[in-house]
Amino acid sequence: MNPIEGHLPIRSPLHDILAPAGIAVIGASNDPTKRGYKAMVGLIKDGYRGDIFPVNPKADMVLGVKAWPSVTAIPGNPELALICTPAASVPGLVAECGRRGIKGAIILASGFAEVGSDGAALEREMMAKAEAHGVRIIGPNTSGVFNLHHRVNLLALDNVKPGDVGIISQSGNMLLALALEAQHNGQVGFSTYVGPGNQSDIGFDDYLRYLGEDENTRVATLYVEGFRDGRKFLEVARDVTAMKPVVVYKSGSTEEGQKAASSHTGALAGSYAMTVDLLRQAGVSVVQYSDEILPVAEGLGLLQKARGKRVAVISDGGGQATIASDRLAEAGLELAALSESTRQRLRDVLFPQASTVNPVDVAGSTDANPSLLATCMEIVAEDDNVDSVFLVGMFGGYSIRFAESLMGDEMRGAEAMVDLARSTTKPLVIYSLYTPIKPPALRRLHEAGLPVYASIEQSVRVLAALGERGQYLAQNQRQVRETALAPKPELSGLFQRAQAEGRDLFEHEARQLLREHGIDVPMERVARSEPELEAVAGEFGDVPLAMKVVSKDILHKSDAGGVKLGLVGEQALQRARADILDSCRIYDPDAVIEGMLVTPMARKGVEVIVGVVRDPIFGPVLMFGLGGVFVEILEDVAFRSIPLSRHDAASMVEQIKAKKILAGVRGEPAVDKEALIDLLLTVSRIVEAYPQLSELDLNPVIVHADGYAVVDARVIVERDTQHTLQYKESVA
Amino acid sequence: MNPIEGHLPIRSPLHDILAPAGIAVIGASNDPTKRGYKAMVGLIKDGYRGDIFPVNPKADMVLGVKAWPSVTAIPGNPELALICTPAASVPGLVAECGRRGIKGAIILASGFAEVGSDGAALEREMMAKAEAHGVRIIGPNTSGVFNLHHRVNLLALDNVKPGDVGIISQSGNMLLALALEAQHNGQVGFSTYVGPGNQSDIGFDDYLRYLGEDENTRVATLYVEGFRDGRKFLEVARDVTAMKPVVVYKSGSTEEGQKAASSHTGALAGSYAMTVDLLRQAGVSVVQYSDEILPVAEGLGLLQKARGKRVAVISDGGGQATIASDRLAEAGLELAALSESTRQRLRDVLFPQASTVNPVDVAGSTDANPSLLATCMEIVAEDDNVDSVFLVGMFGGYSIRFAESLMGDEMRGAEAMVDLARSTTKPLVIYSLYTPIKPPALRRLHEAGLPVYASIEQSVRVLAALGERGQYLAQNQRQVRETALAPKPELSGLFQRAQAEGRDLFEHEARQLLREHGIDVPMERVARSEPELEAVAGEFGDVPLAMKVVSKDILHKSDAGGVKLGLVGEQALQRARADILDSCRIYDPDAVIEGMLVTPMARKGVEVIVGVVRDPIFGPVLMFGLGGVFVEILEDVAFRSIPLSRHDAASMVEQIKAKKILAGVRGEPAVDKEALIDLLLTVSRIVEAYPQLSELDLNPVIVHADGYAVVDARVIVERDTQHTLQYKESVA
Repeated sequence: MNPIEGHLPIRSPLHDILAPAGIAVIGASNDPTKRGYKAMVGLIKDGYRGDIFPVNPKADMVLGVKAWPSVTAIPGNPELALICTPAASVPGLVAECGRRGIKGAIILASGFAEVGSDGAALEREMMAKAEAHGVRIIGPNTSGVFNLHHRVNLLALDNVKPGDVGIISQSGNMLLALALEAQHNGQVGFSTYVGPGNQSDIGFDDYLRYLGEDENTRVATLYVEGFRDGRKFLEVARDVTAMKPVVVYKSGSTEEGQKAASSHTGALAGSYAMTVDLLRQAGVSVVQYSDEILPVAEGLGLLQKARGKRVAVISDGGGQATIASDRLAEAGLELAALSESTRQRLRDVLFPQASTVNPVDVAGSTDANPSLLATCMEIVAEDDNVDSVFLVGMFGGYSIRFAESLMGDEMRGAEAMVDLARSTTKPLVIYSLYTPIKPPALRRLHEAGLPVYASIEQSVRVLAALGERGQYLAQNQRQVRETALAPKPELSGLFQRAQAEGRDLFEHEARQLLREHGIDVPMERVARSEPELEAVAGEFGDVPLAMKVVSKDILHKSDAGGVKLGLVGEQALQRARADILDSCRIYDPDAVIEGMLVTPMARKGVEVIVGVVRDPIFGPVLMFGLGGVFVEILEDVAFRSIPLSRHDAASMVEQIKAKKILAGVRGEPAVDKEALIDLLLTVSRIVEAYPQLSELDLNPVIVHADGYAVVDARVIVERDTQHTLQYKESVA
Repeated sequence: MNPIEGHLPIRSPLHDILAPAGIAVIGASNDPTKRGYKAMVGLIKDGYRGDIFPVNPKADMVLGVKAWPSVTAIPGNPELALICTPAASVPGLVAECGRRGIKGAIILASGFAEVGSDGAALEREMMAKAEAHGVRIIGPNTSGVFNLHHRVNLLALDNVKPGDVGIISQSGNMLLALALEAQHNGQVGFSTYVGPGNQSDIGFDDYLRYLGEDENTRVATLYVEGFRDGRKFLEVARDVTAMKPVVVYKSGSTEEGQKAASSHTGALAGSYAMTVDLLRQAGVSVVQYSDEILPVAEGLGLLQKARGKRVAVISDGGGQATIASDRLAEAGLELAALSESTRQRLRDVLFPQASTVNPVDVAGSTDANPSLLATCMEIVAEDDNVDSVFLVGMFGGYSIRFAESLMGDEMRGAEAMVDLARSTTKPLVIYSLYTPIKPPALRRLHEAGLPVYASIEQSVRVLAALGERGQYLAQNQRQVRETALAPKPELSGLFQRAQAEGRDLFEHEARQLLREHGIDVPMERVARSEPELEAVAGEFGDVPLAMKVVSKDILHKSDAGGVKLGLVGEQALQRARADILDSCRIYDPDAVIEGMLVTPMARKGVEVIVGVVRDPIFGPVLMFGLGGVFVEILEDVAFRSIPLSRHDAASMVEQIKAKKILAGVRGEPAVDKEALIDLLLTVSRIVEAYPQLSELDLNPVIVHADGYAVVDARVIVERDTQHTLQYKESVA
């Protein structure tokens, strides 16, 4: 089995708070319907070893523990306070906690930012007190916290056991659902749970760092409605995923879901497709469906990774081998091509009618001999072409289905699988149709740390997550940080001038910026008058030219009639200029027209779009897609957080559905992918070097079999210079 | 709750075989590892009431029942024989069964067509005997049969109970998996199971008709690797789905899965996308994942249908309301817009902070009062805008999570939900995170016939299937059979001439066929010489024209340089003709060139493709998609079996992802959908009327805001006149 990859240095301040030496329960109660009762029960029943300080001015004792009239009256030094009282009381209590030296407070109450402006004001008041008194805040509007290895069970869940799955969930019901699934599963246990609620202080990034550092956690599992600081989260995720798996379910895949989320936690959902791409870029295992969260978390926690995506299937039923093959292919996994020597070894032990082509179908060979399945798994696990092994079918149920006398052999098979799991680094994933009734052989496998699934679909999701994680780790180790690009003073000057004039870069300036950093942009000239255009015509000669109006006042040049294509010779150019001037004057009589940009028409090729936005949650993000219907109708685009690695750029090109077109269709040659990757990387480096660049849009870029041409370039300039400075600091 | 819709007249000959008065078990055995032992145990333990005749020449008794040395020696009149002996013995035994008056035989042995040509020969030999002696064959290579309401349990499964789910599965493991899931579920029972195996005689269509007629079956559930006669299956499915739901999981969604299936049952998989479209057209509920089969079958069996796709969500947790919203939207369902009076009634019973916009989030209102959830369900169920009700969250677990004292109120809530289910036709679907541990309130709901799910995703699949089925039934009732189209003798003559000359229709003939049946095809002329072209030029005048070579020897006109576009005036036409003649002579010096087809260039518009193939499994199928990348790269096409209804044609246009383009993008007007629908219907009727038409390809058709123009038409002629005649008979 795969160990986790290393340790993060301890840097999170949350360890003291989440594994506290003492806890104050503010609003502790003897009323069983109150959270202040539940929390006390949870601490007492689980045997919390630190000091418990119930705070309740109306009680001497709560559940047999001496109570205190106020936080100030507490004699000891609790590190954590659980505040169970209503929202209005919170700011004062937080201040009191701070004065008493309490490091962190969990705020259960709702009625803060998620309910509107009054609540938001209360939340700001609470945060002001917290900052003034040095108290870190979990919540508000949180379902609470547990840390089972330290017996801190403030939710008083009685169906959870200590284990290695850490959970951060913006839904309390989701935690309960996972806890009940785990109880039913029988093997999954939990380390720490936190509900981040409104994240008014501590956010997903902080909690994730804590789980990354926590030695009891082998897999971090997150239900996210919205990130507070997405860029920071990605940074932490990159660190943590290098050590251990991080599983994220992100809600808001649809507009309907985003609306529901915003009324739940006030979360700003952002683009779902972008979020998923950026999380994957940081090595996160994104799950699409809520019922895959626990299976994938369990599988990644136990097995950590596979070397790659080549799966060997051992099956005792042709139909389920077929289903497995469909699901594996749909998930982007491969049926490993078994070597001839592997196939010979399989033929040596199986009936002649067995299929030794992957998926291996034993075709009855194991009916009286189920341990032979373990032998088959051993054989394929030794094949260099195999990255993981997937057992599909009846194992565990042979003694039920065929004859009770097979129990002994079935248990021997289970032992052999356990031995194999210990001796190989290749993950073994087991689907058995007998999983729902948990027969002894499956219980043995599960207890020994081999996940056993009740559905082929769930098993394949786990295999896919293992393969993706293995490939991520391998490329991440090889990854070379692209060297930073030095901004050139004259180009920084372009931005300053534009900022001073309250405009964006003119297209010829944008082209200059790109060209001077090595991007292929066809030559252009700007003619400001008829005579200048005459000179330009002479310079270009007889090649077909494009002409575009240059004006800070005209954003949509085509709509304004400001673009003419395929012009040959001076006469055509002068006529085009006159037409453009006429159209633009009708379009906007006040527009100041600088002149006409003239540039050669590009050769035919494949049109792609490269864009950059500064996302309010994730910061600078690069977008890539094919032009036309692919972006506009099909939203077939890939996103990556800037800066990109070379692998990131290459993976964008592979991700889009339209990649077939880049590979060449209808006899067209493949486009120059390396040049395209260089382009994406250079754009990423330019964005890093010029914080004044707010947005960029190269639409289209025409890619050829050799190289590419940027045909249109638009650069939006950051107007808020304050923001520019802040950004500079935050990336420094 | 919804009753099933009616009864099919009894027509299937399988009732005698699947509910037989007596059974011969050929190869009955006292050896517990043999199928001939298992079958005997199954019949005896389940208390089969008919006569059992074990056949075994070496035993006097099998499991206490008198055994007979041969089929011939049996004294009674069994209707069914279970043949457990090896493949080689089967043909002789089938003949013996026939002579003894046995109506049906189940052949368990493998080693027939699925293993290659020797096996195929044996299968033919067996079928010859079966036909000669009037024995119907189940299998070979089948996992067997049960009919639990008649206590015929030939698989000796001891974990299945009688119920209303009928199963036909080409995978024995899949049946076992469903049986174990049902055992774990606790409520699902089964009526009849059959493994069709190689379908050498009885096929999926026959079994489905039987389940349709079987009064113990409320839902037919099929695992299919391949249909033998897909067209027949669709016909039966249309009959059965009008009465009761039919759930199909079709394997082979990928090439990998198709390969695996073909080595399993020798099935010819066919196009997965086409199969799914055609099944849906016939009202079948297609499930994509194997772990959705049982949940969807249970839900459809219990609830039958929803009036439409508008779902009201009642939730006690914002996070899960968000997940539900995402999944509903992804599944094409709608969050019902609750009426103002409904919202007021909800506000009257819920806390002020509750959200009464769908998804309804009770926000703590039910923490001490779980039966209020039932009240909310009643309120939304009475809203005319609501077609089905989805309860999401903790119901069933309030007494566990909050206080044991809530048990009474929770049980009252369950009773109220049961009452509501009885009084409303709107389906109630319940997801509870407590489902895995089956608390009393959920057990009560489940026992009363309300399905309770452990996953939001599965619940939504059920809601989607209910909504799709309701919409199918509604449109199916409204549906008017398109009147048949009478073939015109002169057009039939075109086919006869082409068949006689061993060629396909010339394009002008294809255009004539379409035009004379009312399809809009721009006028064309065929010029066979320079002077003819002069006359044609005069006729058209100054409009831009297209010219295409007419030759039976040149299939790919563009590749041969046989197409010229945008020609204006006689000079241009004559030059184009000369160029085309030159190019075509180089391309194929032996090509016989009839002349040049000249036609006006079409106005700009949206390019679509209409195609017809005669599929080997499903017969004539119409395909529709947008031109260019949509068909070629994205395979974004819709298929329907011919003949189409008007609804079928309209639904094709709605199905494709590119439908946004038809609705008008970038300021373009929407295309004339009614004209497009008329075109699809007319093509369907032409294909029905001319069985000599083998394939048709209208590529492209250019659709405008008003009408369309068929720009290129290709009609492939059926060469095998024998086949044409056969087809004529089969549709007669």
